[in-house]
Amino acid sequence: MSFVSPGPGGGQPPAILTIAGSDSSGGAGIQADLKTFTALGCYGTSALTALTAQNTTGVQAVHPAPPKFVEQQIRSVLEDVNIHAIKTGMLFDADITHVVANTLQEFYKSSNSPPLICDPVCVSTTGHTLLHPQAIEVMIRELFPLTVLITPNKSEAELLLSHRNLPCKIVGLEDMLIAAKNLTLLGPPAVLLKGGHITVTTGDIERVSRSHAHILFVNDGILNENMEILEIADQDPSTLQLVVDVLHQRDDKTTLFLRPRIDSTSTHGTGCTLSAALACGLGRGLSCLFSTSALSSLIILIALVVVSDTVKYATAYTHLGIETAFLIGTGSGPLNHLHSFVPRIIPPRTSSNPNPLIRLLIQRSAKTWKNYVEHEFVKLIGNGTLPVASFVHFMQQDYHYLKYYARAHGLLAAKSPSYAANESSALITLHIVRESTLHKEFCAQWNISADELENTTESSATIAYGGYLIDIGLQGDDMKLIMALAACLLGYGEVGLWLKKEAAKCDRWVKLDGNPYLKWIQDYSGEDYQAAVKRGLETIEARAAADPPSAARFEEWQEVWEKCTRLEISFWDMALHLL
Amino acid sequence: MSFVSPGPGGGQPPAILTIAGSDSSGGAGIQADLKTFTALGCYGTSALTALTAQNTTGVQAVHPAPPKFVEQQIRSVLEDVNIHAIKTGMLFDADITHVVANTLQEFYKSSNSPPLICDPVCVSTTGHTLLHPQAIEVMIRELFPLTVLITPNKSEAELLLSHRNLPCKIVGLEDMLIAAKNLTLLGPPAVLLKGGHITVTTGDIERVSRSHAHILFVNDGILNENMEILEIADQDPSTLQLVVDVLHQRDDKTTLFLRPRIDSTSTHGTGCTLSAALACGLGRGLSCLFSTSALSSLIILIALVVVSDTVKYATAYTHLGIETAFLIGTGSGPLNHLHSFVPRIIPPRTSSNPNPLIRLLIQRSAKTWKNYVEHEFVKLIGNGTLPVASFVHFMQQDYHYLKYYARAHGLLAAKSPSYAANESSALITLHIVRESTLHKEFCAQWNISADELENTTESSATIAYGGYLIDIGLQGDDMKLIMALAACLLGYGEVGLWLKKEAAKCDRWVKLDGNPYLKWIQDYSGEDYQAAVKRGLETIEARAAADPPSAARFEEWQEVWEKCTRLEISFWDMALHLL
Repeated sequence: MSFVSPGPGGGQPPAILTIAGSDSSGGAGIQADLKTFTALGCYGTSALTALTAQNTTGVQAVHPAPPKFVEQQIRSVLEDVNIHAIKTGMLFDADITHVVANTLQEFYKSSNSPPLICDPVCVSTTGHTLLHPQAIEVMIRELFPLTVLITPNKSEAELLLSHRNLPCKIVGLEDMLIAAKNLTLLGPPAVLLKGGHITVTTGDIERVSRSHAHILFVNDGILNENMEILEIADQDPSTLQLVVDVLHQRDDKTTLFLRPRIDSTSTHGTGCTLSAALACGLGRGLSCLFSTSALSSLIILIALVVVSDTVKYATAYTHLGIETAFLIGTGSGPLNHLHSFVPRIIPPRTSSNPNPLIRLLIQRSAKTWKNYVEHEFVKLIGNGTLPVASFVHFMQQDYHYLKYYARAHGLLAAKSPSYAANESSALITLHIVRESTLHKEFCAQWNISADELENTTESSATIAYGGYLIDIGLQGDDMKLIMALAACLLGYGEVGLWLKKEAAKCDRWVKLDGNPYLKWIQDYSGEDYQAAVKRGLETIEARAAADPPSAARFEEWQEVWEKCTRLEISFWDMALHLL
Repeated sequence: MSFVSPGPGGGQPPAILTIAGSDSSGGAGIQADLKTFTALGCYGTSALTALTAQNTTGVQAVHPAPPKFVEQQIRSVLEDVNIHAIKTGMLFDADITHVVANTLQEFYKSSNSPPLICDPVCVSTTGHTLLHPQAIEVMIRELFPLTVLITPNKSEAELLLSHRNLPCKIVGLEDMLIAAKNLTLLGPPAVLLKGGHITVTTGDIERVSRSHAHILFVNDGILNENMEILEIADQDPSTLQLVVDVLHQRDDKTTLFLRPRIDSTSTHGTGCTLSAALACGLGRGLSCLFSTSALSSLIILIALVVVSDTVKYATAYTHLGIETAFLIGTGSGPLNHLHSFVPRIIPPRTSSNPNPLIRLLIQRSAKTWKNYVEHEFVKLIGNGTLPVASFVHFMQQDYHYLKYYARAHGLLAAKSPSYAANESSALITLHIVRESTLHKEFCAQWNISADELENTTESSATIAYGGYLIDIGLQGDDMKLIMALAACLLGYGEVGLWLKKEAAKCDRWVKLDGNPYLKWIQDYSGEDYQAAVKRGLETIEARAAADPPSAARFEEWQEVWEKCTRLEISFWDMALHLL
């Protein structure tokens, strides 16, 4: 599995519930959970077990919530929202732990059970005790049986194991394998033993892979075979220090997740973030399995794979959070939760704004666009006083411009590997050719022969605009060319509607009666042309929604749009002034 | 201002503090705040005033935090984290309100003051009282003087105004204008009076614009002039129902923000979300101004503009949150906070993974890539047993392939509007031409004349690969062509390093001594070629980081990469089997 986030991108987001403490400084607790849920495209809900006043230097005070109130929060959420996964974090004391387990158990009896992940938080990164010793037994006895996964770190694992008098000293990788397996004896069907506090070398990995043939390795985080070119200079891969997380699942399936160790103090909230990311992954992948009543062996098998894939994904997210962390606070700072997404530049299409891209382009080029649509040439057409010579000159030059426009559609067809796109280009080309014959007929009325029309010298404005279309067609992808072709298609549509609207006003300056250019106005404001405008809009907006541009790419589109709008203005200047 | 999110995208994210209540269902309170902060690329911290057990149907229970503990949370945050903006939400009672105001005031005396936004939350969307009546006076007297902006809705504004015996009935737009202005008499330098509960028509807007010449209108949310083509069928713009938010700033500056009214029950947490988005915008834009001690008139002027721009941006974010909301819960559901971003497909470049794009491509095409790098042809070169005929055939065909490769670089140059990119293409082309003369010299050793070499019949594998490069060069943008050219450049580099590595092993099968293809191996594993590989990697990764692809665009790159890798395999199959 690659680092392709299951994040936002269509469909109802899974809803996740975190039952944990609050960290005022925002790096851990429900704050880290909610940030992770959001960054990974999930809907976050929360039941707070305790408030902490803390920052990156330590925990200054703790205020636990009354157990009854913790219960009420869980009920409020579960009785109203369809939850896809639950994670628990800091449960603080035995009473709260009991009430959490009890409330969940009751809910699990009466309805489909979303996967539950227990992060057995005992001590904060800064060393503050976050779980009363008496709570450990309650957690093991009442909560673990409900989980699909628990995620202890070294010291939490040691605490849990020692509580049941199991071998508990974890120093190296071999100890981790034994500990992870022994932890499943405490009830959970799977254990992810986090290796952040244990240094492992590639030599350790080689030894383990030789002595434990059944163990799976997930190497996404480190360079794999056939990646010699990606090796970092001055780094000997054989001495690389690793962080290894050990996943032990029922049926003795063990998977090791390998990442390079990073020197960083930005680790505040690492455990919260990881379990939150796990909840997102399982909420997306597992809840459908768990909602079936019969747990067949096939479903269990799929569940094993989903859990393993989710761990791969969640450890990658967390690792990157540490490696891309910003410096916040003066102590052990938080992870960066924002690395998994980029801003959406064009708002989503909605019923109140179905054409967000074109609207944004028009808004950002408002002045140029207005100068184009409300050009003097257009106004003189509207009131019927445009000198005939200008109109004839316009038609002659437009005849040649349309050739470029047709050629650009040929280029567009060549760039579009789909029959639908090719059909569309061909139909538009036929339309352009038909328009050119109308130009020919019009010019004939003014005694300009077909031959003369064909041999008209192209004005600079015509060459500039036509050449620019071909240039963009050569330079960019089909979408960029579509943007270049849009200013003409949409602009003439806007001109037509503008003149039509002005003609309908009481104090109108547009004159339709006896206007020699009436047909021109009617053509561009008419149903046929406007239908083409709508089709163009739909193509552009659908494409942009399916392939949302980065800020840089959008800036390119904006530049093309703005340039074409200016070229349209030059074209009308040319016609008006017989240039 | 367009809807270009100031969201994540480089630079330290501003840190924001919310002082508010917790909503277990995640739609309002600090949960809505933290989601908004995250979605808009800010770092969120929080001080909780009260916990609520609530869901979309109502508030089931409230548990206020001890005032001293609220103070401690604020101190923990402000004493450690450099905060860029603060917002307050539900303050619950007079004691908490007092302690919040007092703690902030003390902090504001002793250091730079981040802009403070007060959302005077009094009643929940579901009708639950969230502020004790006695707290109102404390809020006005102690908190408002510290703010840069307060954001009441209709009922909150009425409550605040009636508290000071000011005219308080707000029914229409004219009332809103008066109310917004009167609210500044209560202390805050700016008031954003939210219009969600008041229906306004375009007729109202026209009347107000005629009678109040000084009022500014921000129409981003509705169609503006020269946007006739974007009008929605069957919708008469003159009867459009609007939501209007009124911003009143010092110096009698009033701005109206217009959006279409949406029929929706997904409005739970609208006020929290808006004020959180405002805090993000002001945190980004204003904190630099406020950190200067002297508030010159120029700074105040800039601040006025920043506040207005931020309101435009924050109302757009909130409006879209309502319009794109998913159905969650059975009552008044939450907004969608996730609409402002899309997943990042390629992880950010880090020191442990400086080439994330190529690594991802290799990982996702691992099998094909291995078949290419460890091809039988390569192995036979490595141990020196490749039949000479195969190698000669390879060199002849590669001579012709290199012509396509050079032409593709010509196309790339034609697609790249920068001298740097053109220089790079030219240098690579010169390198290719030089390589072709080496091929010529090699073939001459085997008695293949220059003429014969030039007229060699191209194999299908050669035509397929060469033609594909030209096709991609025609079809896509420069980046897509770069992806097509990369499999060859990087693959041969990988082959060189692989053979070199295998040759260095104890149990080596690669034989360098007396290997007739030694020079070939040395060329591709040597410094010169490997430097070209590094340059190629850097170009590709830098481009992808500056213009992060959508999922759809990345899939296109993956397809090109996979196809080229397969064409490389075919090329070696062809050489090996003399096809």
